[in-house]
Amino acid sequence: MLVGRQNTKAMHSRPMRVRGAADAARRQHGSHFALGQPGGHHPLTYSEENARLYQYESRSKGGFDKIEQVLRQIAQHQHQVDFINQAQQIAKQELGFALPEIMLENTWISPLDVRALYAWCVFETYSRYANEFYNDSPLARQDDAGFQGFIESCGFHTLDFSPCADGRLAHIIRYVLRLPYKGVRRKSYAGAMFDVEDSLHKWIKTEFTRLREGMPNSVDQNTRYLKAAVYHYSTSQPDSEGCAAHGSDAVAAAEGALSRLLAFRQGVENSFCCGASIDLLLIGIDTDNDSIRIHLPNANGDIDSDCYVDAKEVYSQTFNVSKGNGKAAISELVERLAVTKGVQPSSGMIKLITRLLLNNISQIDYVRTYYNGCYSDIGHQERFIGMGVGFEEVQLRNLTYFAYLRTVEQGAKDLDVGIKIFTGLNIGRGLPAPVVIRYDYHGKVPGARERAIARCKCLEGALKNRFSDLSAQGMLHTLLVVRDCQVESKGIEVVGSSIQTTAAQGGH
Amino acid sequence: MLVGRQNTKAMHSRPMRVRGAADAARRQHGSHFALGQPGGHHPLTYSEENARLYQYESRSKGGFDKIEQVLRQIAQHQHQVDFINQAQQIAKQELGFALPEIMLENTWISPLDVRALYAWCVFETYSRYANEFYNDSPLARQDDAGFQGFIESCGFHTLDFSPCADGRLAHIIRYVLRLPYKGVRRKSYAGAMFDVEDSLHKWIKTEFTRLREGMPNSVDQNTRYLKAAVYHYSTSQPDSEGCAAHGSDAVAAAEGALSRLLAFRQGVENSFCCGASIDLLLIGIDTDNDSIRIHLPNANGDIDSDCYVDAKEVYSQTFNVSKGNGKAAISELVERLAVTKGVQPSSGMIKLITRLLLNNISQIDYVRTYYNGCYSDIGHQERFIGMGVGFEEVQLRNLTYFAYLRTVEQGAKDLDVGIKIFTGLNIGRGLPAPVVIRYDYHGKVPGARERAIARCKCLEGALKNRFSDLSAQGMLHTLLVVRDCQVESKGIEVVGSSIQTTAAQGGH
Repeated sequence: MLVGRQNTKAMHSRPMRVRGAADAARRQHGSHFALGQPGGHHPLTYSEENARLYQYESRSKGGFDKIEQVLRQIAQHQHQVDFINQAQQIAKQELGFALPEIMLENTWISPLDVRALYAWCVFETYSRYANEFYNDSPLARQDDAGFQGFIESCGFHTLDFSPCADGRLAHIIRYVLRLPYKGVRRKSYAGAMFDVEDSLHKWIKTEFTRLREGMPNSVDQNTRYLKAAVYHYSTSQPDSEGCAAHGSDAVAAAEGALSRLLAFRQGVENSFCCGASIDLLLIGIDTDNDSIRIHLPNANGDIDSDCYVDAKEVYSQTFNVSKGNGKAAISELVERLAVTKGVQPSSGMIKLITRLLLNNISQIDYVRTYYNGCYSDIGHQERFIGMGVGFEEVQLRNLTYFAYLRTVEQGAKDLDVGIKIFTGLNIGRGLPAPVVIRYDYHGKVPGARERAIARCKCLEGALKNRFSDLSAQGMLHTLLVVRDCQVESKGIEVVGSSIQTTAAQGGH
Repeated sequence: MLVGRQNTKAMHSRPMRVRGAADAARRQHGSHFALGQPGGHHPLTYSEENARLYQYESRSKGGFDKIEQVLRQIAQHQHQVDFINQAQQIAKQELGFALPEIMLENTWISPLDVRALYAWCVFETYSRYANEFYNDSPLARQDDAGFQGFIESCGFHTLDFSPCADGRLAHIIRYVLRLPYKGVRRKSYAGAMFDVEDSLHKWIKTEFTRLREGMPNSVDQNTRYLKAAVYHYSTSQPDSEGCAAHGSDAVAAAEGALSRLLAFRQGVENSFCCGASIDLLLIGIDTDNDSIRIHLPNANGDIDSDCYVDAKEVYSQTFNVSKGNGKAAISELVERLAVTKGVQPSSGMIKLITRLLLNNISQIDYVRTYYNGCYSDIGHQERFIGMGVGFEEVQLRNLTYFAYLRTVEQGAKDLDVGIKIFTGLNIGRGLPAPVVIRYDYHGKVPGARERAIARCKCLEGALKNRFSDLSAQGMLHTLLVVRDCQVESKGIEVVGSSIQTTAAQGGH
């Protein structure tokens, strides 16, 4: 059955479980999910791109993952005479950069501050990663430029996605859905519970620019703003590895996200006249294997949290089609089942959904090829917390727990989830939580850079205040970063850190 | 000299002092300023409106000012047998309402909690004041509806004012400038240092509504958005009673506000094409006597913080004109002196400035008539702190220290100034600072009311966290208020308070 419609009560007791014979295999941790096609990849999969994406993912994450082991090695030498030279040699060879000399000094008096050194290395690796992203565009594709034309042909001019802040969704745009990251607005919130007023602001600005400047397209073209929310679940460990913000309850996650979508749409409709409205899309992702489900919008745009197309089923049912017929086959499947279920998405919406399902097939094979069909890091494995406004460069799974927020005060819930995750990942075994505080600004507005820096510092103060014990224990380290988001190739600018790497000025 | 242009250095040493023979009288605390017209009022003054405004001001403030004395009286009786009845009788007679019974009980065990009772009475008085404002529109005028047409005839479609958060400027719109409070957007910030990005949002929304819905007027009409900042100073006590946020330095206050105006305009110009821009206005107010100075914009819209028209001089120079010639005389004065100084405001801008100066003449006489030309409360005398979003009903001088903010984190500076002021006013002598936390919402957006309530609670938590000692000592009391700002006649809704007025539920 392609379109799911389940008994809600049953779903609550075992959230979003997949029915049928494949269950046992799917629910066994670490096994790849059975699709009836044991070997080879799907004819619609772009294997070359998969290889390129994997190379980028493994190289980028590898940079972070070496840090712990290298510091273990360096720590062993700290009481030797030639320690600083030895440490620098190991660091340069293994990590590709030297460590701040001042952090290696005086180990004969007090032991190496491994916590600060760890955080410093994470920050240095992050900075290099981010700057590579903006300088070299490793995730860009030649056909990115055509994407705007595609979404307009589907009846949309803007895609605005709010996934959950969970790091296992951070790759949703470029990997899971294979969309150009520049073509989609992404603002993450714990549980995908996005801020309705923030989205209203964005809608107004978007429509204003269309009206005033004809960008991205003119209002003469009958296109709409599409807001999508992305929730998540884990089929293998539904009760523990689902969405923390919704108590690992997939139905609650879907309904929570849906409630925000509906409030946003009604907000637009009620606040402006002349038929102002938006389109909505609700997407779920199985974080075990990156397969998605797309909820089919009804004739009037309404969405049922319980009625969706499952990409795994699409994968199975189209495994034997030829490459040339793939898109048509998927589209036909969606259309036929929409009719069966009495829902009537617009033809443009079907076109978009078809593309998302088609794209997701490559990602399903990506996980099959490189992760045996199921990630080994089913749970959290983020390398750092990102908070603030920005982070376009973070397009990798489980790299960053990202909370989009302007103040700790309003984003406190999202941040608490992040610190809880890092208590499990790092703090519990003695390593600090590295937090990158980010504020992107519009360089064309005078004083915007200075205000962005001030906001970073304000966020840092509020973070340390909220987690004062962790901060005092050296268990919370911060890097302050701003970026002019109006200059595409411009990298990040580090404007502060909790780690001192220059000597304090002494007096005689 | 009508247009001031002073040596900046001299101004720094004695901010904005008024030159000439009238100095001594002006600088003497409590004296009315000399204008060469010892008796009678100016022919352009609306004395009847003055009487009506004074009646409203004195009655409204009187309600707050009775509280202390009434509680002193009530406290004397607290050990008498019939205390509760006595207290209620006094309260009803003097304040017009009964006190919560629970707060009067058990005084034989522990003394009356006068602090909580004081805050409760302030909150009750405030609630009645606010609801009267929305139900009865005591400050509305019949010609308010024509105001939009007037500003459009001056070349503007929106007036957006950012005065200092200081309570001595809270009456700037309806009293000092005699404008309809509904016709002007007002967002207060300490030192008039308004948030540029917040103003950009408002500009976008305004222009969007014009483009899309032709409201308040169509884009075919060549009008602009006018942003004004209002700073302040005290001629009698320039070094101590000026703007606290700028160290009582009038030049710094003017230049600070001007820098924000310029950043906002450049932000608009740089962010949008097709000649997008705004007009700017910088206004100063002498908080001793409510006379204003208006800085004349140059041909290109630039403003010199040092070049202004002083309403006191306008008052003097037009004291002998006939009522029918008043407007023309003022306009001529402004035009002639603009030419003299080589600045060329647009004719629409001159028309607006003329109206503001004309209106201010009534307020100058208001202070002369009812306050002997100089307020006796030259310094702070606010009755409560208002924080959050809203407070349209606060149009009275020295009633409220109002900080427009969405989070304590970002509005901390503004709030610290408020608490500092109330440390002097209340806390230093044992009375708490009453803080009304307010969040207005757009009722047409689903869930907006619930989110507004949640934001009030979040603000309350952050406030108590920032001033935890004061809060623990009972020196900080809060009232949580929301309001649907899309329903004109709807009053406020109290959604919480730090003061418990119902009995705790006990168990057996």
